[in-house]
Amino acid sequence: MPKRDLISPDDLSLEELTALLDLAAEMERDGGRDLCAGKILATLFYEPSTRTRLSFESAMLRLGGRTLGFADPGTSSVKKGETIADTARMIQAYADIIVMRHPLEGAARVAADYADVPVINAGDGGHMHPTQTLTDLYTLKKARGGFQGLVVGLCGDLKYGRTVHSLAPMLARLGAKIYCIAPPELPMPEQALREARSAGAVLGETADLDAVIGQLDALYATRVQKERFPSSEEYERVKGTYVVSAALLSKAKPDMLVLHPLPRVDEIAYEVDDDPRAAYFEQAANGVPVRMALIAALLRLTGETVLAEARAAEPSTPGRARPRAAPEVCANPSCVTNHEHYLTPQFAPVPDESRLVHCIYCDHEVQA
Amino acid sequence: MPKRDLISPDDLSLEELTALLDLAAEMERDGGRDLCAGKILATLFYEPSTRTRLSFESAMLRLGGRTLGFADPGTSSVKKGETIADTARMIQAYADIIVMRHPLEGAARVAADYADVPVINAGDGGHMHPTQTLTDLYTLKKARGGFQGLVVGLCGDLKYGRTVHSLAPMLARLGAKIYCIAPPELPMPEQALREARSAGAVLGETADLDAVIGQLDALYATRVQKERFPSSEEYERVKGTYVVSAALLSKAKPDMLVLHPLPRVDEIAYEVDDDPRAAYFEQAANGVPVRMALIAALLRLTGETVLAEARAAEPSTPGRARPRAAPEVCANPSCVTNHEHYLTPQFAPVPDESRLVHCIYCDHEVQA
Amino acid sequence: MPKRDLISPDDLSLEELTALLDLAAEMERDGGRDLCAGKILATLFYEPSTRTRLSFESAMLRLGGRTLGFADPGTSSVKKGETIADTARMIQAYADIIVMRHPLEGAARVAADYADVPVINAGDGGHMHPTQTLTDLYTLKKARGGFQGLVVGLCGDLKYGRTVHSLAPMLARLGAKIYCIAPPELPMPEQALREARSAGAVLGETADLDAVIGQLDALYATRVQKERFPSSEEYERVKGTYVVSAALLSKAKPDMLVLHPLPRVDEIAYEVDDDPRAAYFEQAANGVPVRMALIAALLRLTGETVLAEARAAEPSTPGRARPRAAPEVCANPSCVTNHEHYLTPQFAPVPDESRLVHCIYCDHEVQA
Repeated sequence: MPKRDLISPDDLSLEELTALLDLAAEMERDGGRDLCAGKILATLFYEPSTRTRLSFESAMLRLGGRTLGFADPGTSSVKKGETIADTARMIQAYADIIVMRHPLEGAARVAADYADVPVINAGDGGHMHPTQTLTDLYTLKKARGGFQGLVVGLCGDLKYGRTVHSLAPMLARLGAKIYCIAPPELPMPEQALREARSAGAVLGETADLDAVIGQLDALYATRVQKERFPSSEEYERVKGTYVVSAALLSKAKPDMLVLHPLPRVDEIAYEVDDDPRAAYFEQAANGVPVRMALIAALLRLTGETVLAEARAAEPSTPGRARPRAAPEVCANPSCVTNHEHYLTPQFAPVPDESRLVHCIYCDHEVQA
Repeated sequence: MPKRDLISPDDLSLEELTALLDLAAEMERDGGRDLCAGKILATLFYEPSTRTRLSFESAMLRLGGRTLGFADPGTSSVKKGETIADTARMIQAYADIIVMRHPLEGAARVAADYADVPVINAGDGGHMHPTQTLTDLYTLKKARGGFQGLVVGLCGDLKYGRTVHSLAPMLARLGAKIYCIAPPELPMPEQALREARSAGAVLGETADLDAVIGQLDALYATRVQKERFPSSEEYERVKGTYVVSAALLSKAKPDMLVLHPLPRVDEIAYEVDDDPRAAYFEQAANGVPVRMALIAALLRLTGETVLAEARAAEPSTPGRARPRAAPEVCANPSCVTNHEHYLTPQFAPVPDESRLVHCIYCDHEVQA
Repeated sequence: MPKRDLISPDDLSLEELTALLDLAAEMERDGGRDLCAGKILATLFYEPSTRTRLSFESAMLRLGGRTLGFADPGTSSVKKGETIADTARMIQAYADIIVMRHPLEGAARVAADYADVPVINAGDGGHMHPTQTLTDLYTLKKARGGFQGLVVGLCGDLKYGRTVHSLAPMLARLGAKIYCIAPPELPMPEQALREARSAGAVLGETADLDAVIGQLDALYATRVQKERFPSSEEYERVKGTYVVSAALLSKAKPDMLVLHPLPRVDEIAYEVDDDPRAAYFEQAANGVPVRMALIAALLRLTGETVLAEARAAEPSTPGRARPRAAPEVCANPSCVTNHEHYLTPQFAPVPDESRLVHCIYCDHEVQA
């Protein structure tokens, strides 16, 4: 059976997504049952991320497997100039499955293209972080049983907040509704919102959290990530605009979930931690069974088939053939194709947007 | 049964201490017998320390458990500004027990307060390093059978040497006597010496190692830690004042133990390594069975009860209630309460010193 | 049985080398069979090296053992000034076998002299990297069945390329022939070539790769290592001189192996990756079974004896006694004896060169 990877949430069909969330619940209930005994997971972190790295390592250890890798590019061959493709072809000899975090957008896709073993994207720059999305969905499903009709407020820095960009279309696909709550200078990008909007899942876009808090079944607050801001002035102005406090929660439904991908800085006051609606530490803990399920499914060790042979086609996308009028280079300076020169930029049509194509590595869109 | 932590040697009653040292001897004799199979130890090192980190990891692996963590704050979420409390609540989902080294005094106490899993302090700034103290005591007991009447010379930099601060009161409590041997500018702080002094366990304080060497059953030399000195001039002046040499040992008892927490710089000449009295490498090796015993006991996996339900009260301390006249902030700039702003400074009475209170995080004393 | 180490390929007799390569083939075929269950490998990397470190860790995990260590001197006690000797005596208490990479030449020899457990040299500055040599030989033997009469071209930076320095004499000893292909300013050092030359195994030295490519059974290309060059001008001039391309391969034998220790920079064009003669990723993968065999053999866990009690004497070297006229210090500034001052420089005769002695740590030669 050909290998599968998880680079973007779109790699999964809705059936696969549902099967993965069910398997995660089974993992949480029954433990890892040594499913991955004798298997090795490589964690290749070209950017530091304690939370994500340790949750993957914990997941693999709880499955009875073992781990190796690096937490920091300073201790890797990167300094000797090795390409992602060569690193992927090296590491596949040392491990049975690869987890990669990389600052370049599309980097994990390149690793998946070159490695014979499954690759999981643990964050590629500002592009995708699919296991965070799976964890977010698992947390909602565990608390509410399902997604149909749920009203989720995505709040804070929606422009730079990578997690909400992939959460919004998934929520729409699963039948939930969303509010986008952000200051005018940090709106959700149109590209991230398009699918939800065309599905009629966007209830509104507002800068006023107070006005909608009472309607929400879940409030998904995002960290104001200093490292994503162009200037520290812009950071300071926005930081603290949408602080979740006890006062705010007094206006919310009594069972509204407060979610946050963590780490928080000032977005959620410490007083909220003791509120039963605070679900962000539970959410962080959920990352372990979700990643256990994903690792076991990608290694085909679950007994039943969770992931089909081939990955889900992008919705309505006929193929990845390069359109005739595609540009020669990707205009996104953080795209991996602008840094790894053995790669050929490739573009695919954007569904329902005949004027646009998107880079198949970083998903940056341009006029066709 | 409620969880236990080890933040300070004072967390252990004398009975518990004895039981732990006995369990360590059993570990050294019989190995780890897979007591921790399926368990995960997290090593959170916000400051580098090869020796301590690797001895904990070796201990856990020899118990059949597994490890994850970070060795360096540069590869952690610390750079994103996450608090100790939040990190503790995250890591408890990834591991069954936490080992933490942190530059702030009181940091491990905070982690223990917030994590649901046991926390071991592997060094919190200049404050405590209780597993070093346990290892020192285990080494003495293994070589001499017990502590009653032993004469131990604590030698070198007693002002900045964290290990001797917690060793002195423990030795006194166990019936040993001590000499403090230090240059006048680097004396043992009164606070560290108080308990031993009031127990009549301090035989003398002197700058003259030669004068007392003949009376010692053990000489505990300490590293002159460059990183603890305010200036490199002060470091250079003191370095080498108390070098343990073959000439010095010719004046010592034929069975006097030479101990050192390692790494040494120049405090012990290489010629001493071949002297049968040199016990410092054995002492380093003893760190493994001691930490095996501690981990197994904290995880309640030893079959018998080593640690009681609640930790030992501080000697003669009626409680940790805040005295009426306590200060609003801790005067120690390295205290964790001055860096993590969700914490409320708290002070407790100092036994037999009615004029004093001490910070319950860093133990800094001030007038009540 | 006394412990064995692997510091230099010369530590192995030809019988031992053959037995190791056979054991590696068995490891590749049958897996690690949990031979190292309950054993711990320490990886002490004072210089970063992802490839070497991860291949050792993968090997130990595939043998059912466990690993600990550091990947970076910044996270070790090195900053506190600990010597290699003291580190070795500490780590032997935490692990059953030690792998060390260190920038100083002779460093691993020092660790082996002080540790009671086996030590494997994973690279000591520009001196030796014996497991790379074993991997290179395993790759050749696996592809060709043996070495007798094989013609191997060593190509590129032969002056600074550590791997070719130990490969050349081993190939000669095993019956292969070599061409040295290098620009005039980067020739193979005479010292590295002496044994092969006196065995009549050197077919030629040339700057012209094109002229000899048709005669080669294997082309061993080496990375132009920027960090080994005295200036970036020298680096830029040489880089790219011997690029292996499809055009070049059109002149080569249809079954010539293309080898490279990796990581490559520009020495092998990406187009060559799809050529069936490209063997460098297979070579990288071979590092795992080779290291599995070595670890299991050094730990004496293989059932049969692979390594004799004592290591092979250096060819024709009567002993390591210090010659009467030996210098007081080693003239190589990167020699470990010039940095770790408890060491006494020692020199041994050079076989068949009565005027020369070599440092027993770094192998630097001087007039006796």
